[in-house]
Parts: sequence; C-alpha cells; structure tokens
Amino acid sequence: MREVAIIGIGQTTVDEHWEKSLRELAGEAVLAALMDAGREDVDGLFVGNMLSGMLSRQENLGTLIADWTGLRGLEAVKVEAACASGAAAVRMALIAVASGVMDCAIAVGVEKMSETPMAETTAALATAADADYESAAGISFVGINALAMRRYMYEFGWKHQDFAPFSINAHANAMHNPFARLHEQISETQYSRARMVSDPINLLDASPTGDGAAAVVLLPVELLHHSNRPVVTVVGSAAATDTIALHDRRDLLWLSAAAESARKAYNQAGVTPGDIDLFEVHDAFSIMAALSLEACGFAERGQGVRLGLEGDIFPNGRIPIATRGGLKARGHPVGATGAYQIVEVVEQLRGIAGANQVPGARIGMAQNIGGSGSNVIAHILRRS
Amino acid sequence: MREVAIIGIGQTTVDEHWEKSLRELAGEAVLAALMDAGREDVDGLFVGNMLSGMLSRQENLGTLIADWTGLRGLEAVKVEAACASGAAAVRMALIAVASGVMDCAIAVGVEKMSETPMAETTAALATAADADYESAAGISFVGINALAMRRYMYEFGWKHQDFAPFSINAHANAMHNPFARLHEQISETQYSRARMVSDPINLLDASPTGDGAAAVVLLPVELLHHSNRPVVTVVGSAAATDTIALHDRRDLLWLSAAAESARKAYNQAGVTPGDIDLFEVHDAFSIMAALSLEACGFAERGQGVRLGLEGDIFPNGRIPIATRGGLKARGHPVGATGAYQIVEVVEQLRGIAGANQVPGARIGMAQNIGGSGSNVIAHILRRS
Repeated sequence: MREVAIIGIGQTTVDEHWEKSLRELAGEAVLAALMDAGREDVDGLFVGNMLSGMLSRQENLGTLIADWTGLRGLEAVKVEAACASGAAAVRMALIAVASGVMDCAIAVGVEKMSETPMAETTAALATAADADYESAAGISFVGINALAMRRYMYEFGWKHQDFAPFSINAHANAMHNPFARLHEQISETQYSRARMVSDPINLLDASPTGDGAAAVVLLPVELLHHSNRPVVTVVGSAAATDTIALHDRRDLLWLSAAAESARKAYNQAGVTPGDIDLFEVHDAFSIMAALSLEACGFAERGQGVRLGLEGDIFPNGRIPIATRGGLKARGHPVGATGAYQIVEVVEQLRGIAGANQVPGARIGMAQNIGGSGSNVIAHILRRS
Repeated sequence: MREVAIIGIGQTTVDEHWEKSLRELAGEAVLAALMDAGREDVDGLFVGNMLSGMLSRQENLGTLIADWTGLRGLEAVKVEAACASGAAAVRMALIAVASGVMDCAIAVGVEKMSETPMAETTAALATAADADYESAAGISFVGINALAMRRYMYEFGWKHQDFAPFSINAHANAMHNPFARLHEQISETQYSRARMVSDPINLLDASPTGDGAAAVVLLPVELLHHSNRPVVTVVGSAAATDTIALHDRRDLLWLSAAAESARKAYNQAGVTPGDIDLFEVHDAFSIMAALSLEACGFAERGQGVRLGLEGDIFPNGRIPIATRGGLKARGHPVGATGAYQIVEVVEQLRGIAGANQVPGARIGMAQNIGGSGSNVIAHILRRS
C-alpha cells in the first residue's frame, strides 16, 4: 500500500448555522480543503454523517455533496459509524487512496443539528445505542455517560470536581480557535456550579452539539510533487468495535475498542504513547476523555483524571489534548467531529495552530468514538 | 492490488418478516455466508443500509451487526448510497481486501421496511432524492420514475404494453427462487390491466419493497487454499454519480452514472457487453430496466424495451436479466438489493441456480442504482 499524505484541510465554524443547509456546510468545507490542496478535482468523495436522514430528511448524501460541490459524476458514498462517522469516512478514503483504487480522495464530515427540536435530536442521537434494549428503555446518551461517570467515581474514588481540568482546558484552548463554537473561559467554580443535566454530568461536562463540516484531501506521497509547507502523512489508522449496549460489557469502565484501535495504530506507526505530541481526544463528556486517555495508554486504569489534575493535558503538558477546544468547546457536530479532529492534528503538525500551537509537534493522534465506546477509530499523523 | 474472490454467499427470503428484527435478518445472511465460506471470522464488516435510522431508529449499524453475529470487536461501518447501498458496501469491502488492509471481509446489505406505515416508508425512500428541491415539492420515487417513463414513451414512440416482458420475465424467474418475495406468474393481460400507481407506472411496473438481507465474504485469491467448487472472482467494480435531482440532468433519459460505472467495470474486466452472460439489472421500475440496459451498452438509446420484445432478456436469450426474479419479483429491500444481485450472480457462475441456471454462465454483471440513477455501482464477476 502507498503512504498517504493529507494535502488539504477545510472546516466551517461549529455553530447554529440557521442560514446554511446541510449541503452548504459540506460544500464550504470541501471547497476550502480543495483550495488548500490546490486542486480542483479528486477521484472519490466519502461523506461522514450520522443524522441526515432523520434530521434533514436527506440520504444519498454522497451524491448530493458531489453534485453541489461541482464534483458531479464522482464516486461518492456516505459512511456511518455513529459519532465516529467522520473518522470512518477519512479511513475509507485513506484505504481507497492507499490501495491505488483512487489517486486522490476527499473525506468530509458534516452534520446539521440545530434546525430540529432538541427532543428529536436527542432521540436521533439515541440511535447510536441499542434500539431494542437501550433506547427502547428510554435512556439517552447523556444518561449512558452518567452511568459510566458515576461508576468511575465510585470505583476509583474520584470526586466530580476532579474532572474539572478537562473542561477548563478545552474552553481555554477554544478561545484561540476561530472555528470553535464556544469562546468562553470557565473557572473551577463555574464548572462545579453548572446546571445538572444527568447526575453526575452537568452542563460543563457535556459537549455542545451544533452544525458544521470539516474535510481533508488525501494523496499518495509518491504523487506529491513539491510542497512549500510541512508534509503530513497518515502513519496509523485502525478501527475496532465493542458491544453496542453498555450492559453487555465485561467491564463498564474499560473502552476495549478504544484500546484496540490505539494499539493497532501505534503498531502501524511504530510508536508508543510516549511519542505522541498531542492527542485530539473524543471528550463528548468529560468521563469519555478520562476513559479514552486510559485506553490509549496515557494513564493507568482509573487514573485518567490525574492527567488533568497534574496539568499533563494542558498545551505545554506531557500530552496536550483538545488543543483546539475538543468536542467540549470546539463543539460536537456528531458526524463531522472525527474529521474536525484530523483537521486539527494537521494544523498542529503544520505549525499553524497559532496560540494553540504545541511547540515542535511532530506526531499527533486523533481518536473518534461512536456510541458508548462501541465503534472507535484512531489515526496517527506525522510531519515528515 | 490483489485479485479478490467471493468465497461465501448468504441470503434471507425477501418478505414481510414480522418475526425478525433488523439484526436478526442481517445475522441470518452473515452467518449463512460465513458457513458457505467455511469461516468463523473475518477482519471487517461493511453494512449496506439506507433506512435503519428512519424506520428502525437504529444507526451504528456496523457495530450492532458485528456484535449480534459474534464478530464483536471487528472493524465495522455502515455504508449508504440510497438504493445502491448494498453494492456500495460490497465495493468498500472489496477495496479493503484488494488493498491488503484486510485479508477477509464480509459485506451485508440489510433493510427492514415492513413494520413502518407505508406513508412513512415512502417518505423515507424520498430521502434519496433532493430533499430541498424534489421531496420538498412532494414527489415520491414512483412519481420520479413515472416522469421518466412517460417521457421515454413520448420520445421513442413506445406503448406501455411494450414494457411487459420485463415484468413477465422477472416474475417467471422468481418462481424458481426460494428467496424471492413473489411467486406468481403474470401474463401480458394481467400486466396491462394492473392497478395504476402513478401513470404510466402500474403495480406490475413497480418492484415490491420488503425485509431482507444478503451477504458475501471476500478473500484474496492468493489466500484461497483449495476449492471444490468454481472460484468466482471480482474482475470489475466501479461507481459513479449523476445529479441528485432529475431536473438538473442534461438528458432525462440517459443514465450517465450507469453508463460510466459500466464503462469502467468493462475496462477493468477487459470485456465488452457482448461478453456478459447474464445481467442482474436494477429493475426497481420497468423504465429503469430499459434505461440501465441502454446505459450498459446492451441496446441503443431508446431501444432498451426492444430487448424484452425480442426475447433477448429471457433465460435463454442473448442477455438474460433478473435471472432470479430481479427487484420486480425477488423483491427490493432497498439497502440489501445490491448485495442480493451479487449473491445471484455468484449462484449463476457457480452453476447452482437450478431451474434459473443460465447455461454455461462464465461472466456475470450486476448494476445497483441509487436514487433516480444518481449513484450507480457496477460489478463484473467471472468464474475461473
């Protein structure tokens, strides 16, 4: 297989985009990524999206976006893996380019969530859980995460307050990201006094959803002529699943698919967790940040929150996370999130992350989590 | 890239499966295909499905089906390309195996449509059209096809009756397919007197939807040890798109994505239309059978219906189509259809199609069409 570079990135702000439709959001990211790549065409389009059928009454999304972006005729499909749809689309594009089936492909994650009543959005998000055995019983995703967080606190003796650094770090980093949904520093006091959503998860443990799109253009390194900026290649890409339902897990507090996808990606890249300069973590809820850090080998089991308390996750720490705001403050347009994470890693490796720049970043990782850790995709990128 | 064989096939009957859920249907096809392949595990699962979020309130379908079928942990995603989702999933699995990313993959198309009120199913199917400019105006898919059929009759001077052979052939072939939804011969008189659905499309021009699943297991030829049955390999696989909306086409009666996907697949396989021994056509409506035959080079523009009138499409004709009943009589569980088509081509090339067997079949083709010809995927298979 061919080594593949990410030669173009594009993204919209994450926001309530009342004036932009699904296709317009995707189009903005696709055209920005093509412009960044200096290309007008590609061989294939992979759209990461979870909710368009339910919320926008639009499927056949690959076709729609190819058509809208002037790529009419192009091979195009939608890829769905719940909240990991964005990374799943990037991975499918990567496989197509690495294999030689395509010479150049674009992956775009897009989600349009604001125009639907919140109760419907919540119900649509619940389709990532087991419809017959979880959603049927009325639990939503915040409820599922609350079960995990409560158990984690009980099992390992942490207090709610101990999770504060995850949210504080994310909000602080988002201040410097023009594409982020929230630009608002938060304090430890604000964190602990935030309104309760589903005990113990409060408003500042939960990421805001939103409308947004992010895209990357992929080309084999062998076809890359010259570049006046650092070349960023994909050196690891792996996916794994777990039980869809939380109640089927042997261990509620161990994300085995996160561990497995990270393990495979490390092996492919020939690196260990200690080599990772920054980590775009899937902090949909602060408990997910902790569990993901543990699964990826950055902390011992039950000790993920310690990385926050000891400052390791901050921009100058041992393993900076959510460097552009993460899901918590950049926002979580679900099917787009995995593509945002990869765009953000590329920004860091190119050295264009501005005030968020991790000094000397050479190797970055992104992990996109679908469902309650049931479908997880890890990517490791390197600056040549 | 590696040459890939289809080493296992599985399918459920197409029916109103009131007693089987989405996961059970998919599971039945997956386990049948694995048993047929003589394997217990694979490296990846690709699920072709269009409607699960809207009709069954279930996304994250890759995970669900991996979990349910005992393949827990496996990489798994859902692939959506409207009614071409089944072939899209097969194509993604093929790329993953051909590239070396996976050594063995399974693709399953599945759809569960019966449990939803028909009006909702019709609305869900309309999400394959342009939500903002077609569905918003109230047109459904049968309406879109009726526009095309009416124009075709006007433009080329055919009568409604001239389309009869497509439906008569499909129904006759389905008589011998135990997995088909309809087992009922029809006559020319029945065809012309059938109840009107959307003028000029009547009930016997339209395929019945239904619940069903079909699966194929893919392995590189180089890893195939020995086989006591004919080896069937994929020698062509290509996809293309067209405008999502009918009103954006330069030519309403030319399926450019069907033509392009077929052209590429012929080139890859090194064959011409004359070399194809049987063709599993996407006869969702009889007009689609005619247009697809033309786009694939089996007939001149405007002359597709002539292949029916002259008997070319019958089992002993020049280019047998819908050999196991096609969408018209095997049934059209939309996201599963493309996988059924490929399973049926494999049956023919293995020589196990029973009373439907096309004598001496060596090269078979399947073309799966999404939307109004907006996303089309062609596969050519060969018996070694």
